[in-house]
Amino acid sequence: MLRTFGIILSCVISVAGFSQQQPDSAMIKRISDEILVNGRAYDNLRELTKQIGGRLAGSPQMVMAEQWGLKKMQESGADKAWMQECMVPHWVRGGKDKAVVSTKPPSSKTGSFPNNNYREKALDVVALGNSVGTPSKGITAEIIMVNSFDELELRKMDVNNKIVFYNYKFNDTYVNTFLAYRDAGQYRGQGPSRAAKYGAKAVIVRSMSNATDNNPHTGATRYDTAYPRIPAVAVGLRDADWLSQQLEKEKLMVTITTNGHFLPDTIGHNIIGEVTGSDYPAEIITIGGHLDSWDNCEGAHDDGAGCVQAIEILRAFKALGFTPKHTIRFVLFANEENGLRGGAKYAEEAQAKNEKHILAIESDAGGFTPRALGFTGSDAQYQKFLSWKELIAPYGCSEFLKGGGGADIGPLSRALKTPTASLNPDPQRYFDIHHARSDVFEAVNKRELQLGAVNMAALIYLVDKYGL
Amino acid sequence: MLRTFGIILSCVISVAGFSQQQPDSAMIKRISDEILVNGRAYDNLRELTKQIGGRLAGSPQMVMAEQWGLKKMQESGADKAWMQECMVPHWVRGGKDKAVVSTKPPSSKTGSFPNNNYREKALDVVALGNSVGTPSKGITAEIIMVNSFDELELRKMDVNNKIVFYNYKFNDTYVNTFLAYRDAGQYRGQGPSRAAKYGAKAVIVRSMSNATDNNPHTGATRYDTAYPRIPAVAVGLRDADWLSQQLEKEKLMVTITTNGHFLPDTIGHNIIGEVTGSDYPAEIITIGGHLDSWDNCEGAHDDGAGCVQAIEILRAFKALGFTPKHTIRFVLFANEENGLRGGAKYAEEAQAKNEKHILAIESDAGGFTPRALGFTGSDAQYQKFLSWKELIAPYGCSEFLKGGGGADIGPLSRALKTPTASLNPDPQRYFDIHHARSDVFEAVNKRELQLGAVNMAALIYLVDKYGL
Repeated sequence: MLRTFGIILSCVISVAGFSQQQPDSAMIKRISDEILVNGRAYDNLRELTKQIGGRLAGSPQMVMAEQWGLKKMQESGADKAWMQECMVPHWVRGGKDKAVVSTKPPSSKTGSFPNNNYREKALDVVALGNSVGTPSKGITAEIIMVNSFDELELRKMDVNNKIVFYNYKFNDTYVNTFLAYRDAGQYRGQGPSRAAKYGAKAVIVRSMSNATDNNPHTGATRYDTAYPRIPAVAVGLRDADWLSQQLEKEKLMVTITTNGHFLPDTIGHNIIGEVTGSDYPAEIITIGGHLDSWDNCEGAHDDGAGCVQAIEILRAFKALGFTPKHTIRFVLFANEENGLRGGAKYAEEAQAKNEKHILAIESDAGGFTPRALGFTGSDAQYQKFLSWKELIAPYGCSEFLKGGGGADIGPLSRALKTPTASLNPDPQRYFDIHHARSDVFEAVNKRELQLGAVNMAALIYLVDKYGL
Repeated sequence: MLRTFGIILSCVISVAGFSQQQPDSAMIKRISDEILVNGRAYDNLRELTKQIGGRLAGSPQMVMAEQWGLKKMQESGADKAWMQECMVPHWVRGGKDKAVVSTKPPSSKTGSFPNNNYREKALDVVALGNSVGTPSKGITAEIIMVNSFDELELRKMDVNNKIVFYNYKFNDTYVNTFLAYRDAGQYRGQGPSRAAKYGAKAVIVRSMSNATDNNPHTGATRYDTAYPRIPAVAVGLRDADWLSQQLEKEKLMVTITTNGHFLPDTIGHNIIGEVTGSDYPAEIITIGGHLDSWDNCEGAHDDGAGCVQAIEILRAFKALGFTPKHTIRFVLFANEENGLRGGAKYAEEAQAKNEKHILAIESDAGGFTPRALGFTGSDAQYQKFLSWKELIAPYGCSEFLKGGGGADIGPLSRALKTPTASLNPDPQRYFDIHHARSDVFEAVNKRELQLGAVNMAALIYLVDKYGL
């Protein structure tokens, strides 16, 4: 690339000129400059991911992350900062998850296999969150592969005492990868219980991803209490491909060893920083992400990004001397990944105190380049939201979509009918790293992360100024 | 992230439904599915970058890349494929570029330095493309740092016999990084000659990047023939920061050793694959990128991406049995980086043969997630282009901009008044890796790369069907 830049992408040149006439665009430009030049989000994310790391609810890292978050809120200039206590589930992985495929039957009872040339291969697996562990010697059984729930139903008579391998593929044809995730995600959520219904001893699920690597992707499973709880692991995509090809040729055994179990619920906290509104201190705008992450990764995109963006908006507002008319709460939610107790607690307390919340915004789709803002509210509110599109579009969110929110602010929305919004970054890379060991600091780009904060800060500025 | 996906980003769900009623959207969906499911662009890019690597004009790798490109055109189903010969400049780096900063004067003539505690430090540098080399023992002189050309002019009396360090920073406040590149790029282009004018012996330029690493970024410099040609290197950003801080404290010497020189012009080629139009075979749509790259990297984003996207569109059209009405040429241009001879040759031959070109599209801004299509043509043509926005937006290019083209298709546009278009991917990550050793295959995301091809293929399909 040598000269292309001269003629393309000239649309944002107008920002500077425009800003001289329009106080709103001038203020948004100031916010953007502050975040892009003096931003701390990237350095804060490095601290959270490299000094603390994965931080599942109940873990020692969660406790460290809470202290870190409280300190960051204070350092960034919050008028008030506190910890909001809630009980959180405490699932632990308990050790290294293993799955070893072999051609050898475990005992004479299993019958003889056509191939007497014994071979074995370790698969790259990770136990699903909330799943039960195996006995210490593992569970060994023949694998039955199904490509869908439909196929499971057709072959239900063959499932008893087997280990079911769900080889349902992430659908590459969806441009929006979140739709592919929703589609494939049911195998992680429902797969274990649907297999247990027919007597399966354990489950292997193809990771819900279209990555080119072999990292397995965890995430919460949900047991149906009507059936036995059986162990479940996710397997990396290359191993899933290998396994499916191999199963076309021969019968295979697998020994799965996992150690997942629940300890008693423990104390966790939402971390809250607040800037008190000058005119309407009792009316609240909430912005946040979730502080917890899965234990098998650094939780950089999911959702360290959302946390450091919230902290960054607080820092930038204070650095610019901006005093909002409404109270703004910057919240690092507890336990999104396997319980959502933080979001529930936040809503419960807001309702108990009869708080007035005018908007809640969540960033929990990765720290990628911002593309859209989503919004859920009344038609009149949506029209007002839409009217701000031209002001924010130059910073990346050039699409303003109907429908926005997030897991953590869902309870607030349901309890108080609070309008909700979400930052929608570009979704192409998210499921490469989502819940996998590759969700690390190095996978986050500084500018993309910063611009996410810029776009949400602009929306908050406008909602604060004009209401909804 | 657990439940967010259910409520956000639902805008593209409509693609499937819409496609049943609309033949154009149905065809674009077919193209998208073919590229996203069966695409070869990513594997082709792996071959080009890992088996061949950097491929500057005149290098042995350029010759290998040309043969590779011709084979890919044939394998992908081109009705015709050929090599279009052009003479290309042949600059070689000639060895490892070095810059060692020290506190010690090289001889008594230079005078004594305040700090007698000798120290030295090697900077991470790369010679600018087309730059002359130093004598084999290097060039040693005191460093004079200037933060801008204005400062150079103010201090021009101090420049003689010094080595000028241009510490002009990439402007982080531009949301569109291409504007920051255009702004900073003048120091790479004009810096050496403007310093030579005042007697400088060599130049160190701060890399034009906002990366967080220390990789130096090369790129072509342009000597003004009125002044001596002096050696010039770019330095990585961390070393640039270190050097500028150190120079605030003490005077420093630097010894620069580079070996760049030109060999006689040599033979290069544009690689052209063609699908002959069924109705208007003499009317041509050109789509391409440049096959050459700088020698210090794999040229994955710049511009292996544009090349494999063009090849992919050819492959997908053929795989779908799509026969265009107009002739489509898929072109891998020669020598974009330091001469543009390929683009010039393509235009020259088109003019000599009195060819009719209805559109030329270039992809040379990286293989990142597509965001916009740019277009340059008459007002009526631009309106027609705009009318296709709703059809293409679901695949990523949701912005249709006035102004599009590229370096390689510029000569064609000037010679034949051909309308030009460009794929504008998201620009946030491009200058992290542009012309640096970090422009490698691993920096490219498969889906982002594929979607770039999808969006350009859709535009070609519409231009072919409806004309411009």
